[in-house]
Amino acid sequence: MKQYLTIDEWSIIEESFDSQTHEISESVFSIGNGYMGGRANFEEQYSGRSLQGSYMAGVYYPDKTRVGWWKNGYPEYFAKVLNSTNWIGINIEIDGVQLDLATSTVSEFRRQLNMKEGTLSRCFTATLEDGKIVRVESIRFVSLVRREIGAIRYSVIPVNFSGNITITPYLDGDIKNKDANYDEKFWNEVEKKGEADGGFLTLKTKKLDFHVTSAMAFDILVNGEKLNTEVEVIELEKYVANKINLSVQEGDQIVIYKYASNVTSRNHGLGQLVEAAKTTLQQAKEAGFSTLLKEQNEAWRDKWKESDIIIEGDASAQQAIRFNIFQLNQTYNGEDDRLNIGPKGFTGEKYGGSTYWDTEAYCVPFYLSTADSSIARNLLIYRYKHLEKAKENARKLGFTKGALYPMVTMNGEECHNEWEITFEEIHRNGAIAHAIFNYVNYTGDKAYLGQYGLEVLVEISRFWEERVHYVPHKDKYVMLGVTGPNEYENNVNNNWYTNRMASWTMEYTLEALAYLQENESTRYAELLEKLELQETETSKWNDIIAKMYYPADEEQGIFLQQDGFLDKEIIQVKDLNPENLPLNQKWSWDRILRSCFIKQADVLQGLYFLGDRYDLETKKRNFDFYEPITVHESSLSPCIHAILACELGYKEKAYEMYLRTSRLDLDNYNNDTEDGCHSTSMAGTWMSIVHGFGGLRVHDGRLTLKPSNPGHWKSYSFKIMFRGTRLKVSVTDLNVTVSNETEVPVYITIYDKEFTVNGLSSVTAPGTSVTA
Amino acid sequence: MKQYLTIDEWSIIEESFDSQTHEISESVFSIGNGYMGGRANFEEQYSGRSLQGSYMAGVYYPDKTRVGWWKNGYPEYFAKVLNSTNWIGINIEIDGVQLDLATSTVSEFRRQLNMKEGTLSRCFTATLEDGKIVRVESIRFVSLVRREIGAIRYSVIPVNFSGNITITPYLDGDIKNKDANYDEKFWNEVEKKGEADGGFLTLKTKKLDFHVTSAMAFDILVNGEKLNTEVEVIELEKYVANKINLSVQEGDQIVIYKYASNVTSRNHGLGQLVEAAKTTLQQAKEAGFSTLLKEQNEAWRDKWKESDIIIEGDASAQQAIRFNIFQLNQTYNGEDDRLNIGPKGFTGEKYGGSTYWDTEAYCVPFYLSTADSSIARNLLIYRYKHLEKAKENARKLGFTKGALYPMVTMNGEECHNEWEITFEEIHRNGAIAHAIFNYVNYTGDKAYLGQYGLEVLVEISRFWEERVHYVPHKDKYVMLGVTGPNEYENNVNNNWYTNRMASWTMEYTLEALAYLQENESTRYAELLEKLELQETETSKWNDIIAKMYYPADEEQGIFLQQDGFLDKEIIQVKDLNPENLPLNQKWSWDRILRSCFIKQADVLQGLYFLGDRYDLETKKRNFDFYEPITVHESSLSPCIHAILACELGYKEKAYEMYLRTSRLDLDNYNNDTEDGCHSTSMAGTWMSIVHGFGGLRVHDGRLTLKPSNPGHWKSYSFKIMFRGTRLKVSVTDLNVTVSNETEVPVYITIYDKEFTVNGLSSVTAPGTSVTA
Repeated sequence: MKQYLTIDEWSIIEESFDSQTHEISESVFSIGNGYMGGRANFEEQYSGRSLQGSYMAGVYYPDKTRVGWWKNGYPEYFAKVLNSTNWIGINIEIDGVQLDLATSTVSEFRRQLNMKEGTLSRCFTATLEDGKIVRVESIRFVSLVRREIGAIRYSVIPVNFSGNITITPYLDGDIKNKDANYDEKFWNEVEKKGEADGGFLTLKTKKLDFHVTSAMAFDILVNGEKLNTEVEVIELEKYVANKINLSVQEGDQIVIYKYASNVTSRNHGLGQLVEAAKTTLQQAKEAGFSTLLKEQNEAWRDKWKESDIIIEGDASAQQAIRFNIFQLNQTYNGEDDRLNIGPKGFTGEKYGGSTYWDTEAYCVPFYLSTADSSIARNLLIYRYKHLEKAKENARKLGFTKGALYPMVTMNGEECHNEWEITFEEIHRNGAIAHAIFNYVNYTGDKAYLGQYGLEVLVEISRFWEERVHYVPHKDKYVMLGVTGPNEYENNVNNNWYTNRMASWTMEYTLEALAYLQENESTRYAELLEKLELQETETSKWNDIIAKMYYPADEEQGIFLQQDGFLDKEIIQVKDLNPENLPLNQKWSWDRILRSCFIKQADVLQGLYFLGDRYDLETKKRNFDFYEPITVHESSLSPCIHAILACELGYKEKAYEMYLRTSRLDLDNYNNDTEDGCHSTSMAGTWMSIVHGFGGLRVHDGRLTLKPSNPGHWKSYSFKIMFRGTRLKVSVTDLNVTVSNETEVPVYITIYDKEFTVNGLSSVTAPGTSVTA
Repeated sequence: MKQYLTIDEWSIIEESFDSQTHEISESVFSIGNGYMGGRANFEEQYSGRSLQGSYMAGVYYPDKTRVGWWKNGYPEYFAKVLNSTNWIGINIEIDGVQLDLATSTVSEFRRQLNMKEGTLSRCFTATLEDGKIVRVESIRFVSLVRREIGAIRYSVIPVNFSGNITITPYLDGDIKNKDANYDEKFWNEVEKKGEADGGFLTLKTKKLDFHVTSAMAFDILVNGEKLNTEVEVIELEKYVANKINLSVQEGDQIVIYKYASNVTSRNHGLGQLVEAAKTTLQQAKEAGFSTLLKEQNEAWRDKWKESDIIIEGDASAQQAIRFNIFQLNQTYNGEDDRLNIGPKGFTGEKYGGSTYWDTEAYCVPFYLSTADSSIARNLLIYRYKHLEKAKENARKLGFTKGALYPMVTMNGEECHNEWEITFEEIHRNGAIAHAIFNYVNYTGDKAYLGQYGLEVLVEISRFWEERVHYVPHKDKYVMLGVTGPNEYENNVNNNWYTNRMASWTMEYTLEALAYLQENESTRYAELLEKLELQETETSKWNDIIAKMYYPADEEQGIFLQQDGFLDKEIIQVKDLNPENLPLNQKWSWDRILRSCFIKQADVLQGLYFLGDRYDLETKKRNFDFYEPITVHESSLSPCIHAILACELGYKEKAYEMYLRTSRLDLDNYNNDTEDGCHSTSMAGTWMSIVHGFGGLRVHDGRLTLKPSNPGHWKSYSFKIMFRGTRLKVSVTDLNVTVSNETEVPVYITIYDKEFTVNGLSSVTAPGTSVTA
């Protein structure tokens, strides 16, 4: 962990160039618009360590699985997020020498991600090996308004010389995924054309036949005058470029405007790709850079109006929460229901796939509160559409019925291939069921159950039914051979969290069945028939609910991670020499497995999900036992701990956990940000404010708030959407104000006191300094 | 499982050609001489499915590790047995058409592995697509007398035509390992030369720089007349060949004698390789095929004189045991102490590496009884030489002291990379310790302890000491996160076998220390200093021995495979639909892990190793519980069960297990013989006769025998070496005769009765039909 970024409430800023942290910055300063995006690579050549990355949402590659030793049940392929055409490239050659920060002396460097306006900018002064000095300023963005468009303004000033500068804007499709299993390239060229004012390039993937056309255009101005000079056209394999030679004087300002459009066969017919790319490109170029930039700034202003969280009195915390909200808005916008939320968004390619349990456990709550409910609903329907594949997946593993959703997927098929995770981390099924509950509970949209939800619930319950078995000598049902969210133990028996979510799923399924029977009897009858649901099944579920085995330690009053957990040597993280952290980089896997150290919330995850079923004392005992042995080496860990710590009144711990989740990438806590940002955990950061400090819960259709202050914030505020209203919640120690920005009245509870907030008005309740 | 081989007491015979079983036959009919060997590939081109394989002992390749997800502690490379130059090739072209059994109609086919004489022969009549018929007969061997020499006699008769036959003997070094992780070729060419009468080819490995020179020479006779015709020389990359065009008449007999020598940089200086290859080749060619064949036959006759086991009244069992002994003698001869016994010998390349725990657990007993004790001692010293690497291996996993031997190795370094095996299958340490006990116990060579054994024992005990930990609430030491020999469960706690062998190791180490202190006090003092052994350590070992936790079920009186084993659903193999078998091919890994089915002996392995510490009733209860849930999908399983079944008087089960171990490859029980034979388990087969039916044990320096008969054998006999004597044990139901073939008297026990067998005489005890 190295903190090298400047604290600023609206920007991420790096004030000097360090090749050692460059790849981390490439991740952190990434830009995207939900449709495409990429890492903060340099426009000009860079020969140092770098992960060049441009990504198009939903364009993936089924890379042949790589394992050491094949196990039956492994999938044939692992779906990779595809690194695609580099459209940002502009090489600069100065009297025959390439401008390259790896070989230059760099000063006055500044890289800035302006989150308020949605731009990435950079400036620096470079002294080349031959002593020539240039000053460069660049700014670029991918447009929120024109999703297929990216634009760059790149200016160069020869500071201490007159001479020749060669400018080469290009499209490079000769791209390799860093994580390709067999070092293969995934793209073939289909078509290309270079012309004097730009060019285009169409590639298709070697499998699945995704087509992507990238087109570019440019303008060059010298001292504000548009240039009309000779342009060389270069066409190489999967590569199109223009080369412009300029004879320049010391102090001249050369400005390149580069426009690029990237269109895919996901949104256009194969025959229309080139035309579509050219048309959007032409429109963008005609609008001009300033107009595009203005559109971008306004679009982001609107985004912030809906989703900003304001923290007064803590610039670091403020920067962090905005960074998280900014990245979430860059990654996914819910407009395309075939998409989901990849764990690294557009910031890197590690992990592959787009859909993990992260979506249900962390992202659904964020979208439920910050967007129209149709967005969260789309995320649920995405899984409904994959139900048949999930049933096939269960059959493949030998189950005669039920559905097992994949650990990682792009299209409903499993593509992960570590047995201890793929086959055993089945708690994902529980999170998918719980998201249905969460959606219905939050929105009140009970119709969803009959339309989609119940089918998923029944198939998941069936899976659990077959996955547990009855042990006569215990008179209990047990679940052997699983991995909990805590992946630092594998193939354990009776993971408390998994067992609990399994029986909870069955309870909720039975509840949903009863609701339908009572309220939608026709649909109920239809579904019974469609699902061929037998009474023997539901009565078996009741039996399992009654007799599920939950490992626990009576003496300490805690639930046990898994069978035999207390046979481990229990050491607290604070008693470890910090040199051992992060364990996953410092310790052998063998040592990690045998230790008591937990990667992420497990029992506590269950206590958060099923928070209304456990009293505060139970939560406290478990938190006090587990948090001290948790290393939080999953990005999904600190947020859950922050929320529970708030509930338990552990202010200091809550703040520590909040900073850790919110500044995870900014401060590179887990020493892996260079691979990309932890995009899905950013929703967890949002939760740690709204569910944590804000204490937001929904019980029986009623929104409740129990705001608290980590201690030194002057105030904070956040916005939430709830059943047709939009509310702004502002918190100080003195009072909590809830303003209703819509005309629909809403009934809420603040600190156990009930309020009605009428349309376009607000209520104020006394704050903690008054009530405490 | 498909039985297609003819039963014969001295040969393995295949009487018709079936491309479906060809790869199995390529494994089963393999030939080797401990120095080199290869699969029973065809000499002429074969375009059907085939695994071309020629192997040189000790020549390996550190192939870059392939895993799906890297875990800390994994080795950088996996050592592969190297598939090397194909020296057997002789292509036959008939009027422009390649002779190829995949495209011909084949009749009168016969393939025979003559185990008595050490040859592989084949004959067939092939009708080519153009209707031409040829009759072919071939015989080849790798010489036991001249280890670097292989020889082939290959004859062709044009049956129904006169025309042109082109003969192309060649050396092909353009070879790829089928199991190369990244589809790479591992060999570079160094030098080659084609001449009119043969040629040579030197290759070196891309890493580690092993050099292998192969040279060939040939003679061609037509109707017995040596041919002097024009020979075309062909040199291609890594390939040397001669091409001879013959104009032949219907009924002519064309005979090709091909001689090849294969020399490696393991045995010759780099500069001497070509000379060495040429010289040995020249000598072989001058000796001539008949002489080489005669030498071979005699050498094998001598081998059999020492090691034959004769079974009267059961040809299938007789064939099987000879096949096992034959393959063992082909694989390893103990002459080169840098070598060990690869799991597939020279019959295939799967698994890689040369040294597994198989060596200590299965092969050492075989060599102890059938060869000079220096051979078993060399196998032990091999591990002694790797002690420093084993200590490094333990450090790499985070242990502060002690040694963890590798799961798979070529040079002492770990090269296996499944975490659940590499890091967890640590019981191998126990087997390595036990082999020291076994050697000392069998040979009486207690000096070995002071010379080598104790250092290994102390470092292994130290490992165990750190690997267990004390659990206060149990007042026991536990061992978490291991995999037992039963690899169908991973990351379990308190595997009975591993715990038991760990505490046993400490006991034996303390015993050895006490022996040294009393009998070799100077060496004892030296070793204490060298090992820096502390009293705190030995007292800790005593504490662990006293308080080791052994999972058990008191009610059933059995030891438990591992913690929680009885929470599994206990189903017996006989109640499974046979379509489910073998599980490892039919079931998902998930299902295997959760089931109760055991791959190989685990508790029973411990009861065999420590047989004198457990009474018959204990063995019986455990056998009765575990055998019915064991699927024997490890080649190492049936032999242990056969031995215990004999001890328990379960004749039928013993015979079933004997057939399964002895005919494992002949009958392709586990449906994987095409990858190669299970060479190390063949030592287990030998054990199942000698330790099983023969009931051989050594207690307190005394050889004891308790022979039994599986029921229908007329008689059987085997030979054993014991402390300077060679004994022949002949068993019928009526009596047991032990003949001493040496001049040294020996004291033995037969069925609890003591005998002295004087030099060159014999004793006879009443057999089971008398005593029963």
